[in-house]
Amino acid sequence: MDYVYGPGRNHLFVPGPVNIPEPVIRAMNRNNEDYRSPAVPALTKILLEDIKKIFKTTSGTPFLIPTTGTGAWESALTNTLSPGDRIVTFLIGQFSLLWIDQQRRLKFDVDVVESEWGEGANLSVLASKLSSDGAHTIKAICIVHNETATGVTNNLATVRKLLDEFSHPALLLVDGVSSICALDFRMDEWGVDVALTGSQKALSLPTGMGIVCASPKALEASKTATSVRVFFDWNDYLKFYKLGTYWPYTPSIQLLYGLRAALDLIFEEGLDNVIARHTRLGKGTRLAVEAWGLKNCTQKEEWFSNTVTAVVVPPYIDSTEIVRRAWKRYNLSLGLGLNKVAGKVFRIGHLGNLNELQLLGCLSGVEMILKDVGFPVKLGSGVAAAAAYFQNTVPLIPSRI
Amino acid sequence: MDYVYGPGRNHLFVPGPVNIPEPVIRAMNRNNEDYRSPAVPALTKILLEDIKKIFKTTSGTPFLIPTTGTGAWESALTNTLSPGDRIVTFLIGQFSLLWIDQQRRLKFDVDVVESEWGEGANLSVLASKLSSDGAHTIKAICIVHNETATGVTNNLATVRKLLDEFSHPALLLVDGVSSICALDFRMDEWGVDVALTGSQKALSLPTGMGIVCASPKALEASKTATSVRVFFDWNDYLKFYKLGTYWPYTPSIQLLYGLRAALDLIFEEGLDNVIARHTRLGKGTRLAVEAWGLKNCTQKEEWFSNTVTAVVVPPYIDSTEIVRRAWKRYNLSLGLGLNKVAGKVFRIGHLGNLNELQLLGCLSGVEMILKDVGFPVKLGSGVAAAAAYFQNTVPLIPSRI
Amino acid sequence: MDYVYGPGRNHLFVPGPVNIPEPVIRAMNRNNEDYRSPAVPALTKILLEDIKKIFKTTSGTPFLIPTTGTGAWESALTNTLSPGDRIVTFLIGQFSLLWIDQQRRLKFDVDVVESEWGEGANLSVLASKLSSDGAHTIKAICIVHNETATGVTNNLATVRKLLDEFSHPALLLVDGVSSICALDFRMDEWGVDVALTGSQKALSLPTGMGIVCASPKALEASKTATSVRVFFDWNDYLKFYKLGTYWPYTPSIQLLYGLRAALDLIFEEGLDNVIARHTRLGKGTRLAVEAWGLKNCTQKEEWFSNTVTAVVVPPYIDSTEIVRRAWKRYNLSLGLGLNKVAGKVFRIGHLGNLNELQLLGCLSGVEMILKDVGFPVKLGSGVAAAAAYFQNTVPLIPSRI
Amino acid sequence: MDYVYGPGRNHLFVPGPVNIPEPVIRAMNRNNEDYRSPAVPALTKILLEDIKKIFKTTSGTPFLIPTTGTGAWESALTNTLSPGDRIVTFLIGQFSLLWIDQQRRLKFDVDVVESEWGEGANLSVLASKLSSDGAHTIKAICIVHNETATGVTNNLATVRKLLDEFSHPALLLVDGVSSICALDFRMDEWGVDVALTGSQKALSLPTGMGIVCASPKALEASKTATSVRVFFDWNDYLKFYKLGTYWPYTPSIQLLYGLRAALDLIFEEGLDNVIARHTRLGKGTRLAVEAWGLKNCTQKEEWFSNTVTAVVVPPYIDSTEIVRRAWKRYNLSLGLGLNKVAGKVFRIGHLGNLNELQLLGCLSGVEMILKDVGFPVKLGSGVAAAAAYFQNTVPLIPSRI
Repeated sequence: MDYVYGPGRNHLFVPGPVNIPEPVIRAMNRNNEDYRSPAVPALTKILLEDIKKIFKTTSGTPFLIPTTGTGAWESALTNTLSPGDRIVTFLIGQFSLLWIDQQRRLKFDVDVVESEWGEGANLSVLASKLSSDGAHTIKAICIVHNETATGVTNNLATVRKLLDEFSHPALLLVDGVSSICALDFRMDEWGVDVALTGSQKALSLPTGMGIVCASPKALEASKTATSVRVFFDWNDYLKFYKLGTYWPYTPSIQLLYGLRAALDLIFEEGLDNVIARHTRLGKGTRLAVEAWGLKNCTQKEEWFSNTVTAVVVPPYIDSTEIVRRAWKRYNLSLGLGLNKVAGKVFRIGHLGNLNELQLLGCLSGVEMILKDVGFPVKLGSGVAAAAAYFQNTVPLIPSRI
Repeated sequence: MDYVYGPGRNHLFVPGPVNIPEPVIRAMNRNNEDYRSPAVPALTKILLEDIKKIFKTTSGTPFLIPTTGTGAWESALTNTLSPGDRIVTFLIGQFSLLWIDQQRRLKFDVDVVESEWGEGANLSVLASKLSSDGAHTIKAICIVHNETATGVTNNLATVRKLLDEFSHPALLLVDGVSSICALDFRMDEWGVDVALTGSQKALSLPTGMGIVCASPKALEASKTATSVRVFFDWNDYLKFYKLGTYWPYTPSIQLLYGLRAALDLIFEEGLDNVIARHTRLGKGTRLAVEAWGLKNCTQKEEWFSNTVTAVVVPPYIDSTEIVRRAWKRYNLSLGLGLNKVAGKVFRIGHLGNLNELQLLGCLSGVEMILKDVGFPVKLGSGVAAAAAYFQNTVPLIPSRI
Repeated sequence: MDYVYGPGRNHLFVPGPVNIPEPVIRAMNRNNEDYRSPAVPALTKILLEDIKKIFKTTSGTPFLIPTTGTGAWESALTNTLSPGDRIVTFLIGQFSLLWIDQQRRLKFDVDVVESEWGEGANLSVLASKLSSDGAHTIKAICIVHNETATGVTNNLATVRKLLDEFSHPALLLVDGVSSICALDFRMDEWGVDVALTGSQKALSLPTGMGIVCASPKALEASKTATSVRVFFDWNDYLKFYKLGTYWPYTPSIQLLYGLRAALDLIFEEGLDNVIARHTRLGKGTRLAVEAWGLKNCTQKEEWFSNTVTAVVVPPYIDSTEIVRRAWKRYNLSLGLGLNKVAGKVFRIGHLGNLNELQLLGCLSGVEMILKDVGFPVKLGSGVAAAAAYFQNTVPLIPSRI
Repeated sequence: MDYVYGPGRNHLFVPGPVNIPEPVIRAMNRNNEDYRSPAVPALTKILLEDIKKIFKTTSGTPFLIPTTGTGAWESALTNTLSPGDRIVTFLIGQFSLLWIDQQRRLKFDVDVVESEWGEGANLSVLASKLSSDGAHTIKAICIVHNETATGVTNNLATVRKLLDEFSHPALLLVDGVSSICALDFRMDEWGVDVALTGSQKALSLPTGMGIVCASPKALEASKTATSVRVFFDWNDYLKFYKLGTYWPYTPSIQLLYGLRAALDLIFEEGLDNVIARHTRLGKGTRLAVEAWGLKNCTQKEEWFSNTVTAVVVPPYIDSTEIVRRAWKRYNLSLGLGLNKVAGKVFRIGHLGNLNELQLLGCLSGVEMILKDVGFPVKLGSGVAAAAAYFQNTVPLIPSRI
């Protein structure tokens, strides 16, 4: 069944799905269970409490939906909005584009603020739209916290500041797919109304669980939102939450136990340490890119992403060839350039359960591939730059001191 | 993490999720992979071909959607129908009820044909509705092949015969959640337009994959169906099928390899042998129920289900107590009675990767529990009845002859 | 790789290797580790303390040897005795025979007390040997606590009483392979000098760990015992125990974590509850055998084994055919008759992580097979007898009350 | 149960136990089985044929013994030799020392040829011993193919040449623990009489299987060898080989299936490609050591090992601190210096299922640690040296071309 076997480990550096840590793989290695026995609701109850911590919310209501990020998007939109509602949304890369496409197909009135790919959301345009919207025609701001296609992190604190400045009641819906549990994310502090992620990203689980968290304001909005929804309807969940059985339909037993294990690891490391580790991995990657003499697709430091780095290759190189060769020769999985940046960038995902030596192995692989495809990189240069930074910053593993 | 540990195996006899065979658990015991590498499309391509066999279709187009049965329902409906479309649908138990609820919420014009719980779909009413629908206002017939709440199997061949008799063009949408890959199901022969199941049923996988198969006529209908859909939109899949990358969003790598292993086991046993085994397990269960002096919830033999048996308890017994006690004392998981039959029936699921001795252990457990709750069963009576039948019918395991 | 696939679970009722519980399989599902890191000694230290509990010893010194029961035997003998030493030993079945063969090949002076197969050790002969051994020529008594070939449990308390009565200093070496952690075993109270078992028996692990526990007197004896030994030498272990690194050679990381999980389950259930469960399973099996009208190979009640039952078949039936058919038709693994009782008995192992419904499934299978081979069993009779007993005695699962 | 959790993967670079590839972990993720059913002998039969390929023998007889390398040594010696037999043996490091210790304790007449640690076996001394042994008092030559403590590979072809030159009939017993299946090893061509390895080394399995292969001459010798042996006695195996049941005592079911998977991977890659990969990994490591300005413990190129490199640290550094820090800060497991070279060397194991990027991650980690402990390494220098070599030599993965 392993059609493409190569010796040694696969080095998985796409920005999701990411490596699953062994304790999580172990926890999921199990038979099915009756989800109507007392055991599964008891487990779910604790999970719903604990998952709130990765959103940094105490007032939010989480939903663990058997779906992907795309479904989580749909859940966020259809539960809070009605067809025709005006949304301000930001097009900055492939994933924001796909979400916008969904917003349109769900029949909202989509007001797109576009930036160059590599730039962050244009928040001054947002400011002007808010300032001129005394009538509150804008029902929601939809923003991707971290655009996975370009490695751009938007500033959500500023978005909240603007909404507050204009006392604007629009809902704030955030795609946190490649940010939550890796980047600093503060649902309550930033007044995020719906935040969402997918299990296969920073949580380091298999794909299959869309995790959506709704503020009280979002729940309130769901009572009047007329978008048609059944599978994604929060209300079905809420009914079963009240009954204490928790599930309107069958959950994946394996993902529930996996999530338990994943959260245990995150809490053992400490969420802030997890975030610090991602900061370190992001910075190390960027130092390597700089040392290679290549450009980060992200245009300004304020947008640098600590979960994914899109590296721009010189015009004479096809980045697709880099990704292909990584996999074919070095058992290394890198992210392709997508859509507008197809062929122009390749992406290094550095999120999830990952450490410095894994990343250094990847960076060393990238150096060899760059040489393979004719870019005159000095072998060891990127690794050295990242390692110099890591050697000064990596903490001792607390459980081993 | 195992909050409710009891010694020995859990005897899982709910009608889903069912036992996962060891080779499938093994196949799923793996790290994530880049689903954009050449390996995953190659695997998917073969899976899409092979999955058609369990539907007995050559002309259908399958979709492996990261969702549950509820999502698969939604996929079937929204891709083929438009709001306001008239559906004839059959209410015969809790799962048909839930589907009907979904049909209503999706804004179709739902024409419900109701039967007593324990009876099959009233096909003579269908006949009269079809006969009087010369204008073809009925756009679809929605029917649950096997109602999991009552253990009732509907006769799909007759439905097709009626449609043909009246040359009616209505689409035939079938919930095969607790039938496909266990009961005789013939998509092409019966002219089923959309058939669907869930991974955690007869396929014996974890929950998380909704498997939907669409006839050419259904695909054609999807081109004009105006129901709003994004996550469940077949068209997004079809686009990626054409590209050869197959996935509009991230699939579960583990479920793909698990499906591969599950199909390998089914094909090794032979689909018809799998179905024969379910026939045997169903018959054995019914013989036991009869020997106990209890009634099958299913009213007539023509509707007997070979995947689940709902057993009616005497009025002085609460079936919920039977299920509770099974789990608390014997590590046996039985199905609850739902809705109208809550407290009145308990259910024995006998589907998926299961053999006779497992079932006999379950039946023996049920006998002890019946005694526990005050029903004067003769211990061993049901087991003896089933065993007498099995001893005459169980074939040698081909690989061991 | 599964050459002999049959649908549903394999029903494993050989008296070892036995079923591994899921939490143990999970715990072992892992990569290798450096056994010289601080983690493995820390784990080992706790394991060595905890393993003593299943021997009911506080003064014993345990050794976790990468070997099987045969190697554990060799470890017990070569560390405590010198070539030419006189051993009194009991031949009551195939496994005592194999141990005696080993004793002879290791050049001891082996004084065999033989019984009919199906009888226990002849302790009155032991008494007379001890009484006439004022010179203390007998250096050790070697006895199998539970003879796995015939299902006979010897009375170790009486052996100790006899040794005490004659104030005889002989070492007491006990094979507890199919008893420890399932039958009542009291190393300290009974003055056992070396006790041993294998991981694949009542501990419900894979094969590969021979567990040997030595009394202070045995350790003292090891200082002068001149039997040649290296791999099995306790002294090499003791040196590394002192160093705190614990391992003279590489242990199986997987078995260490597996043992941790296995002990956790045993302690959660409670060792005395584990023993009570085996008592129940043994009694239930014997009631079934009686109901079938068959004889237990064990001649008297005082020797009845609660871990394995050898069932005598009528002369016109070949028990080998029963075992063959069980596996070929019902996916049931029973134990063969060995050596003197080959063809005459088949064995039902009922030890390890096993519950009543599993056993009832097995018993039901045996009934069908008996019928298959022409024995006029009343189907359901054995199951009914066992179930009647279980229904009165099985406790609620404590974690589920 | 994971007392020492650190984020990301553990980088396992001790020279055994080594990383287990995922397909092997999967294959071992299973319940026990009856080893007396037809399935296990069938599996064993094929394994015994296939395992011969990694020894490059067609005439040898393999034994898969539930033990470690230490037990495999004992098996090799006790089956072929009698107490008092003269052995010529080579002391060149800790593992040869331990084997010599065993040889002495087993009462052979051990004639030790000692070299400096870091040098290979002194074969000119062997030549002179052979030349002066016209009486053939030397019964066996015992030699470690690859001394794991110092990273020294001995030249077995020369040993054979010497034996042939002097027409000396001594048996040639070879410890191939850290060589077989990684270095070029030719049992038949080199006239090796007993060769052995352990499962946790280049085969990349868990510990627990000692694999011993005996030439016809060794089997012949076993008929008259009088060393006391039971557990390790080949004859017990041979008896069961003849019977077709293969096992004198219980094997580990999990290791058998694991071995099947491990061999499948090795044969898919091609044994010669596996060896070439080790050559590459060894050379890359040595280039890195050189670039760091450190010395290889191995004194001459002819002895360089492709499975383990012992790196000499400057006198002002304690190599133990390097190993400790690697584990505590970078989740990297390196090998300690042992005995004479304790504190003076650390070891990088580069054997088993490993690829270049994994090694480069390790090398990068070593660079940071060297800096941590005050050695003035240029970060990136070793990685660059290794990568330059790899970039020229790593082949495309055949299954992905």
